[in-house]
Amino acid sequence: MKHFFIAIIILIALSSFDSVKTAKITDPLVNKTDSIVVKNLFNSGLNSGKSYQWLDYLSNNIGGRLSGSLQAQQAVEWGEKLMQDLNFDKVWLQPVMVPHWVRGEKEIAYFTVNKIKYDVAICALGGSVATPKNGVSGEVIEVNSLEEAEALGEKLRGKIVFFNRPFDDTLIETFKAYGGCVDQRGAGAKVTGKFGVLGVIVRSMTNSIDNFPHTGAMGYGDIPENEKVPAAAISTVAANLLSEKLKENPTLKFYFKQSCETLPDAPSFNVIGEITGSKYPDKYISVGGHLDSWDLGDGAHDDGAGIVQSIEVLRLFKLNGIKPKHTIRAVLFMNEENGLRGGRKYAEEAKNNNEIHMAALESDSGGFTPRGFSFDATGKNSELIKSWKSLLAPYGLHDIDKGHTGADIGPLKSETITLVGYRPDSQRYFDYHHAATDTFDKVNKRELELGAASMASLIYLLDNYLE
Amino acid sequence: MKHFFIAIIILIALSSFDSVKTAKITDPLVNKTDSIVVKNLFNSGLNSGKSYQWLDYLSNNIGGRLSGSLQAQQAVEWGEKLMQDLNFDKVWLQPVMVPHWVRGEKEIAYFTVNKIKYDVAICALGGSVATPKNGVSGEVIEVNSLEEAEALGEKLRGKIVFFNRPFDDTLIETFKAYGGCVDQRGAGAKVTGKFGVLGVIVRSMTNSIDNFPHTGAMGYGDIPENEKVPAAAISTVAANLLSEKLKENPTLKFYFKQSCETLPDAPSFNVIGEITGSKYPDKYISVGGHLDSWDLGDGAHDDGAGIVQSIEVLRLFKLNGIKPKHTIRAVLFMNEENGLRGGRKYAEEAKNNNEIHMAALESDSGGFTPRGFSFDATGKNSELIKSWKSLLAPYGLHDIDKGHTGADIGPLKSETITLVGYRPDSQRYFDYHHAATDTFDKVNKRELELGAASMASLIYLLDNYLE
Repeated sequence: MKHFFIAIIILIALSSFDSVKTAKITDPLVNKTDSIVVKNLFNSGLNSGKSYQWLDYLSNNIGGRLSGSLQAQQAVEWGEKLMQDLNFDKVWLQPVMVPHWVRGEKEIAYFTVNKIKYDVAICALGGSVATPKNGVSGEVIEVNSLEEAEALGEKLRGKIVFFNRPFDDTLIETFKAYGGCVDQRGAGAKVTGKFGVLGVIVRSMTNSIDNFPHTGAMGYGDIPENEKVPAAAISTVAANLLSEKLKENPTLKFYFKQSCETLPDAPSFNVIGEITGSKYPDKYISVGGHLDSWDLGDGAHDDGAGIVQSIEVLRLFKLNGIKPKHTIRAVLFMNEENGLRGGRKYAEEAKNNNEIHMAALESDSGGFTPRGFSFDATGKNSELIKSWKSLLAPYGLHDIDKGHTGADIGPLKSETITLVGYRPDSQRYFDYHHAATDTFDKVNKRELELGAASMASLIYLLDNYLE
Repeated sequence: MKHFFIAIIILIALSSFDSVKTAKITDPLVNKTDSIVVKNLFNSGLNSGKSYQWLDYLSNNIGGRLSGSLQAQQAVEWGEKLMQDLNFDKVWLQPVMVPHWVRGEKEIAYFTVNKIKYDVAICALGGSVATPKNGVSGEVIEVNSLEEAEALGEKLRGKIVFFNRPFDDTLIETFKAYGGCVDQRGAGAKVTGKFGVLGVIVRSMTNSIDNFPHTGAMGYGDIPENEKVPAAAISTVAANLLSEKLKENPTLKFYFKQSCETLPDAPSFNVIGEITGSKYPDKYISVGGHLDSWDLGDGAHDDGAGIVQSIEVLRLFKLNGIKPKHTIRAVLFMNEENGLRGGRKYAEEAKNNNEIHMAALESDSGGFTPRGFSFDATGKNSELIKSWKSLLAPYGLHDIDKGHTGADIGPLKSETITLVGYRPDSQRYFDYHHAATDTFDKVNKRELELGAASMASLIYLLDNYLE
């Protein structure tokens, strides 16, 4: 009850002071009980955390789990059983139909200059069509943007378009560099298909200069079937080499072959576990990540980390005897990578069932050391979250700002909900993102556990103060 | 299309984090020029940084470089030539005699329980004496502290003492956990030698549960020669196993053998390069790390990272056309690990030559993502450094507090000098610290470069504002 009154006082105070005055009254908000609970969540999360061993199993015993695959189904069963074994109050599967794209045989690509053949590392982009059975071969036109490609228009006919705009390494947040490049991957084929190109190859979305192609979703929008051309990612090492060789030999021929295809939609599930609220059982706060991953690595950072952290949040609540006021749900979303069907289905069902979602937290930026949280909330709740800064700072959580929260929770957006994204350090994320290098050995145990404890602390505070 | 759309949202959302635009100019000291210079240092450090390729060479072509070794001498020559090639105004070697301890043959250790032999991973601690040629074998007494061992007194006679107090994983800063345990390694042999023990084995100083022994310095103080017993680190996996087996079989016998020895002191050098000050050429600001490392890994994080970052600071100054007021020195200290002779020699020579050292910055906490700086300064200069918080925060540098700065720069301590330690994220450091796992592949290029740019920014600010 004490927390309830404090929250009321705070909310009144926050709504009637200007920002400067608010800053002065924020410290009393962080009361001693909160400070102790947060410390206990971190202590137990670091002394007896389970997320790392769960992630080991998910990554190494199940592995990459693209929507519609056998591994995705195994991950569903694993998540359901794990949460049942943890004795959550309720655990269930929420059916959802998902796209079912398969990569097929390993892709092949090379180009030849002065009789020297350069094999290059590529992979089909998710959602792409295959090349003809014997592959495609053609001259290459290198461009740096969708606009540049469109401007070339008919000059692209019969060519392979090579999108090669690199990450801007000067951006401290690597997600911003990603955001500045990923249109090439998403829409490169869509905007050039109408010019009769043979195919599209896209520089991998990474800061790293490595020999791993990084896959990811692409789309054709509503263009005619006959304009859909194959699209592949090329490693940054190969992209640099190709670009260099093109300067010397603009008419060199590039060959690639891929046999991917889109099968009919497949049945799958979101996996949901909950601790029923003690005061508001019909009001919900969710914490989640996505259970599907790309197929090249084992999806440890993207997003196995978010999955095990979300389940760990509920385990830490039980372990510490925290009886939440609201119902707290761990939601393992299916199909974030190539469809977002799970996120949409969850929001749709929430609406159908008249569930009141107070807040949703997503972890989908890797299992790295904590930096903070991004949020999207009403003015009142924004101030509330900001008031926790001094409480969270000792745990490395300094970046508490408005910003992007999470793809899966996006469909829950309403005028009242508080959406939050867990924001770990971003420096290494795109080294592994969507590549064969996204594997369990890239995850540090303490970093993963600190993330889970950070998320548990935020869910505790949201549960305690949201009204 | 969905992902393209999401990317746009991300781009918009993240634009609010743009470092320079949102840096609040709250202090008159932090003016717009500073903000631009810092941004330029980061831009050039991230777009054309050299530290990573230098570290690749130092780690992979020279490798572990314990004081007195051939590799340490090669590292001296490499550092001198590199700074000459970079056209620093002055580059020279400062002679210093260093301890010359050698590990000898690979250590052997095992214990036997119920006729099952358990081989365990150990390594001699730096400075330890050897075991007798055929090793030592004896019962084991496990203790958790120096005090517990001393209290046992004569009960230790003829036994092997096993110091097994683990890191406190609940401490967010791992250096604090290290500080809470390292007395066992440093003084375990010194305090138990007088009781006629056969030897000392110490749990490795790491949060990680792994099978790598982590070496490090130990000392005998001024105890008599005949009380000096061999001391070794044991991996945490082996320590846990031994502890478990001791509970069942308190009289099990442990065997270990090591052939390390201390040779006569050897000649070596600090390596110093400088850019001469434009206004105060006879006043100095130094930036450094230590060139020596332990011998088990290649010393990439400890402290190859600090070395290449320090040289990079001066290169970034030249690249950006910054003409410092004070003379800026990169100091590659020799022998931090097992003697601190380089740090002492540098301070001694500075005193002999009446050099006025305004400030010294050390990077010796690994090449990880930036978190901040610790400092030790007068009240006025403490306030000055704190006034840069808003300028540095957009680069992840939030932790700007008084604290430990660096071992090598400690001897420079005076009433007026400003000492600063670069503080990267500490979560992964002790996974690798002093172990065979401290290798180049554990270093992330962006994290290393962000550290160098952080250090360059701090040196720029110190140069600009210290009077």
